[in-house]
Amino acid sequence: MSKLQIGILGATGVVGQRFIQMLERHPWFEVAWLAASDRSEGKNYSEAVRWRLKTPVPPKVAAMKVSPATPDGAPRIIFAALDASIAAELEPKFAEAGCAVVSNSSALRMKSDVPLVVPEVNASHIKLIDTQLWRNKSGGYVVTNPNCSAIGLVLALAPLHRKFGLDTVMAVTMQAVSGAGYPGVASLDILGNVIPFIRNEEEKMEEETHKLLGQLNGHGIIPAPFAMSAQCNRVAVEDGHTESVSIRLKAKARPEEIIEAWNSYRAEPQELKLPSAPEKPIVYLDANDRPQPRFDVDMGAGMTAAVGRLRPCGVLDWKFTVLSHNTIRGAAGAALLNAELLKAKGYLGSP
Amino acid sequence: MSKLQIGILGATGVVGQRFIQMLERHPWFEVAWLAASDRSEGKNYSEAVRWRLKTPVPPKVAAMKVSPATPDGAPRIIFAALDASIAAELEPKFAEAGCAVVSNSSALRMKSDVPLVVPEVNASHIKLIDTQLWRNKSGGYVVTNPNCSAIGLVLALAPLHRKFGLDTVMAVTMQAVSGAGYPGVASLDILGNVIPFIRNEEEKMEEETHKLLGQLNGHGIIPAPFAMSAQCNRVAVEDGHTESVSIRLKAKARPEEIIEAWNSYRAEPQELKLPSAPEKPIVYLDANDRPQPRFDVDMGAGMTAAVGRLRPCGVLDWKFTVLSHNTIRGAAGAALLNAELLKAKGYLGSP
Amino acid sequence: MSKLQIGILGATGVVGQRFIQMLERHPWFEVAWLAASDRSEGKNYSEAVRWRLKTPVPPKVAAMKVSPATPDGAPRIIFAALDASIAAELEPKFAEAGCAVVSNSSALRMKSDVPLVVPEVNASHIKLIDTQLWRNKSGGYVVTNPNCSAIGLVLALAPLHRKFGLDTVMAVTMQAVSGAGYPGVASLDILGNVIPFIRNEEEKMEEETHKLLGQLNGHGIIPAPFAMSAQCNRVAVEDGHTESVSIRLKAKARPEEIIEAWNSYRAEPQELKLPSAPEKPIVYLDANDRPQPRFDVDMGAGMTAAVGRLRPCGVLDWKFTVLSHNTIRGAAGAALLNAELLKAKGYLGSP
Amino acid sequence: MSKLQIGILGATGVVGQRFIQMLERHPWFEVAWLAASDRSEGKNYSEAVRWRLKTPVPPKVAAMKVSPATPDGAPRIIFAALDASIAAELEPKFAEAGCAVVSNSSALRMKSDVPLVVPEVNASHIKLIDTQLWRNKSGGYVVTNPNCSAIGLVLALAPLHRKFGLDTVMAVTMQAVSGAGYPGVASLDILGNVIPFIRNEEEKMEEETHKLLGQLNGHGIIPAPFAMSAQCNRVAVEDGHTESVSIRLKAKARPEEIIEAWNSYRAEPQELKLPSAPEKPIVYLDANDRPQPRFDVDMGAGMTAAVGRLRPCGVLDWKFTVLSHNTIRGAAGAALLNAELLKAKGYLGSP
Repeated sequence: MSKLQIGILGATGVVGQRFIQMLERHPWFEVAWLAASDRSEGKNYSEAVRWRLKTPVPPKVAAMKVSPATPDGAPRIIFAALDASIAAELEPKFAEAGCAVVSNSSALRMKSDVPLVVPEVNASHIKLIDTQLWRNKSGGYVVTNPNCSAIGLVLALAPLHRKFGLDTVMAVTMQAVSGAGYPGVASLDILGNVIPFIRNEEEKMEEETHKLLGQLNGHGIIPAPFAMSAQCNRVAVEDGHTESVSIRLKAKARPEEIIEAWNSYRAEPQELKLPSAPEKPIVYLDANDRPQPRFDVDMGAGMTAAVGRLRPCGVLDWKFTVLSHNTIRGAAGAALLNAELLKAKGYLGSP
Repeated sequence: MSKLQIGILGATGVVGQRFIQMLERHPWFEVAWLAASDRSEGKNYSEAVRWRLKTPVPPKVAAMKVSPATPDGAPRIIFAALDASIAAELEPKFAEAGCAVVSNSSALRMKSDVPLVVPEVNASHIKLIDTQLWRNKSGGYVVTNPNCSAIGLVLALAPLHRKFGLDTVMAVTMQAVSGAGYPGVASLDILGNVIPFIRNEEEKMEEETHKLLGQLNGHGIIPAPFAMSAQCNRVAVEDGHTESVSIRLKAKARPEEIIEAWNSYRAEPQELKLPSAPEKPIVYLDANDRPQPRFDVDMGAGMTAAVGRLRPCGVLDWKFTVLSHNTIRGAAGAALLNAELLKAKGYLGSP
Repeated sequence: MSKLQIGILGATGVVGQRFIQMLERHPWFEVAWLAASDRSEGKNYSEAVRWRLKTPVPPKVAAMKVSPATPDGAPRIIFAALDASIAAELEPKFAEAGCAVVSNSSALRMKSDVPLVVPEVNASHIKLIDTQLWRNKSGGYVVTNPNCSAIGLVLALAPLHRKFGLDTVMAVTMQAVSGAGYPGVASLDILGNVIPFIRNEEEKMEEETHKLLGQLNGHGIIPAPFAMSAQCNRVAVEDGHTESVSIRLKAKARPEEIIEAWNSYRAEPQELKLPSAPEKPIVYLDANDRPQPRFDVDMGAGMTAAVGRLRPCGVLDWKFTVLSHNTIRGAAGAALLNAELLKAKGYLGSP
Repeated sequence: MSKLQIGILGATGVVGQRFIQMLERHPWFEVAWLAASDRSEGKNYSEAVRWRLKTPVPPKVAAMKVSPATPDGAPRIIFAALDASIAAELEPKFAEAGCAVVSNSSALRMKSDVPLVVPEVNASHIKLIDTQLWRNKSGGYVVTNPNCSAIGLVLALAPLHRKFGLDTVMAVTMQAVSGAGYPGVASLDILGNVIPFIRNEEEKMEEETHKLLGQLNGHGIIPAPFAMSAQCNRVAVEDGHTESVSIRLKAKARPEEIIEAWNSYRAEPQELKLPSAPEKPIVYLDANDRPQPRFDVDMGAGMTAAVGRLRPCGVLDWKFTVLSHNTIRGAAGAALLNAELLKAKGYLGSP
């Protein structure tokens, strides 16, 4: 079976690089086309990119020419890692031209007919695709994954919401610098510092979490009806968003039931054995000082969210810490898993 | 007028060093006696200490001999910066021997007859001294200041509690490494990392905040009756604890009223013009990304708590960020201001 | 006596900010005019700048309008903190228009008729001004200070060169991120990392050190004739360039003579009591693990170079470590001290 | 073939942990016995250790009891990762009892009958074993590997020494905190800082480099006769020692010949296909800003030294940067490769 050809929009950015890294040995997909900003166009990828990962640029990709960011000549499956303002313009163009656009951008996430999906959480939402005008006209569509700060949280919440019902969520994040792209955060801003502000991040976390845990009905997604508040901070960590979370549940739960809900959680990606699905989407760590980015960010090849420190909360019911890899589970890996889900569900055509 | 002689217990630690630095040019007090662990005893202070501050050891102190940690020969006013387990043993001995022990340790903070005081918050609580057995027997007593994580928070809460009434408090901290003393946190543990655990810290923050905002009546302190939950994290910052806080107030408040409550807050230390009292105990910063440790930790010579980012909370009423200097306002400066309050109130003898 | 009016070119950058900070309470100079890039023009300084210092923007400066970067309406004394390519174009224009341009840029440093001056090292070189065409035509001229990596080194070398004669110098630097301006080094590039390359830095260090220690004769500067090699690295430090240096001297020297040469070194700025001159340009620290940026970078208000670890070298004669503040002694303070020297020597008009 | 049983002295330290990690899937060796300090004795390894690596403790090892640090009951092959003072006492005891002690400690490295070996550099030196008294009495012996700062340097020097002859070496190091063990460097000492001193490190680097490149004759090792000077600094990097090096060669060399000497270098470990030998001991990186710890420290699974920035030196002939992983190539991997060499040469007995 030959592999499906993938195009990458925003191929030179931090998330674009992760796409290329994660696709290097992928069993289903292969990188066939790259686009980036105008100033990269026409260059070899290795010249255009300032590669910031520890593994080298795959030689095949290094030699590829960077194409203009237009649908002509692009493959039918596009992974998009664009800034929101550019995504708002380009993603619809590619969808209109018949491409399956698997997007990591925030531009269209909250659009009522665009699925915002974490395959372990709300795989069924991909059916929204069928309501997109693009889909009906050209076969193209857009599917999105959430913000890197929402994805770890929602993985931790999903099993609890399913089993006990969520009433209230409060989350305070300590986010890695790679979440801001490259060059992103200036070293003078973050060395020995905490920045208690990330533009639009709290708003995204709150609305995306509600949509992700929402219900699909005939008219779209009904956001899940719990109360939520997020506070977002930047810290001097390379990769891995850590979050201090408090929750109130609708049903009574004992701590061992909560931990069991996390550790035993399996969903469609695990059942379908999607190539990038971690064996365990969530793992509870017993040590009293974990999870920590330095040690736990790469669990499940960066696709597992690590949870720890479950204990009673003096205001809500429970508090805990969750950590997930922001450029793998929170960005490139999220989109890739969405693409794998789409393929498994027949949305990428017959191979 | 000659200065009052001060002894320092735990003089070689991070907080002990701050005491010495802050007392170098103090108008009322001067360092006259130093004690530390057994292995320092008999050495010159400059030999015994691994000095970790940017200003040099004051020459007069550098040449002082480190005394044994017993009351014999010690002055009548003792600043104590001891580990809790040692404080539990030593502080009562010094109080029994007639010393005014101004302690930064957690050992006796929650004892029902020991005042836990932030002079801008609950100066009146020092009257608890009069109920201490030591006081009645030898004239000695113990006064304490709160944990470094509680003190910035309580400064931000006090004006709001006074004006609007506190109903609920949730706080997530991002604490500097200097809060753990020296050598404290290993570099292999914190470089590029977040540690979501500090032993006993959450418990202290919660119970101390309640006591600080409590009411003194004939029988002691009635803790303030609001709900509270704290989560404590360590980050790679040298000095300055940053906290993401959410609160619910009893009375309705508009944001400009809250900001005004902070900016206009003055209390006894300001009225008494205590030497270490900052002109403004709390300052609200308008910039949307402040306060930050790198830029704001030294406000008011490290004695002002900086607040910022006031905005509505989706769960409680309001959220904001508070920052305070953990070894100045949160430790040595806290004890020093307590001592100044005691002197102003006549607890250190006739001037 | 009214103060001399100063204009600042490049007022919004890291060095421009330091100029403003250092001039806030200057006895001779006051900021009267600011220019920056086109996109700042017409804004209030406080809007145009992303202020990165711990002290606040001086209120008077905060309210000043940013002017176009042309000589019309600018004062006669200009402090310039521009990128080299822009400096190459603008500095001659201001000199031609009659301005005294005190520049921190590298653009004109090596020009044969432009003095490159560290007042403690080669104050006499300012006479080169009299050979500049601008000077003869309009009264304007350009004076420069060296690169931030050269200035700490040359302060350490000057007393030894004067007393023992320099034969050979090898220097390896570990340079702070503030040396790259703002935003400068991306946090993803430097957190937990060392970058063994700074563009053009080694070349500048080598040629500037030779010129600084050179002799002025009738035809210009004869570079000092020692052999030199520099290697430059970037490290995750905010302020302060640390350098591991090895030297061979022409005359025999005992270690105590070298240390005495450093500690006793005084030069014209000290004799003239220039306002920004440190009491001691160089201080030798006895502790075996100093100087360190964290503790020693602010010595002499950032104008003193700290030296330590003098010991024999297995290849040349001696090795030692030198540290200096790269944006104070190595940039803004360097230019300011040059301006003070110019004033003291009558180059800024009659006092 | 059953695997050889390995005992580890100092099993709970940073290097001991690396031993366990690197032996988890080793084809020849397996961990059979662990010893550490008294306070660990009798505990399960997982309880005794504060594990600081990203991969988990191998389950088999986690459950092993920590034995007393005496030869009774220990296997015949001992990997030792002890502090020098303890090694000086224990290593001879184990050798005397008939053990092959493969040591990472500095205690016996410079002893005239103890081989100090990097298998790619001086594999022939292991014959010194035959001159050890222990060997003759009990069959036991001690083999050592160099300090973590010497090993990257000597890998870069060996091919040049062999081909062109070394005349002079100057090296300035920027060393990672893991080189100091755990807890090692306090975070308050190194965050945003450089420490220009590591006790005894410069002395070790200089004398070990000479011994490693020396000649074995009938009477022992004749140190290589080049001049050398080292300066050692600590920086805020987790793993990877970076070194700025200058050299003078005896024979004339063109840069492409030097690079070719590095890139083509192969030695006994590669020929013998030792399991831990990297395919390429040294790799030259063409990019002008490499090697960097963040990106290059794990080359060859941490066993390859990365070299870059070859350029002429204004004092000696050439300068360049070398990077190697200090706890893999510089410690645990070094000892493991020594053990593999010993086995291949028949020094570990018939399996």
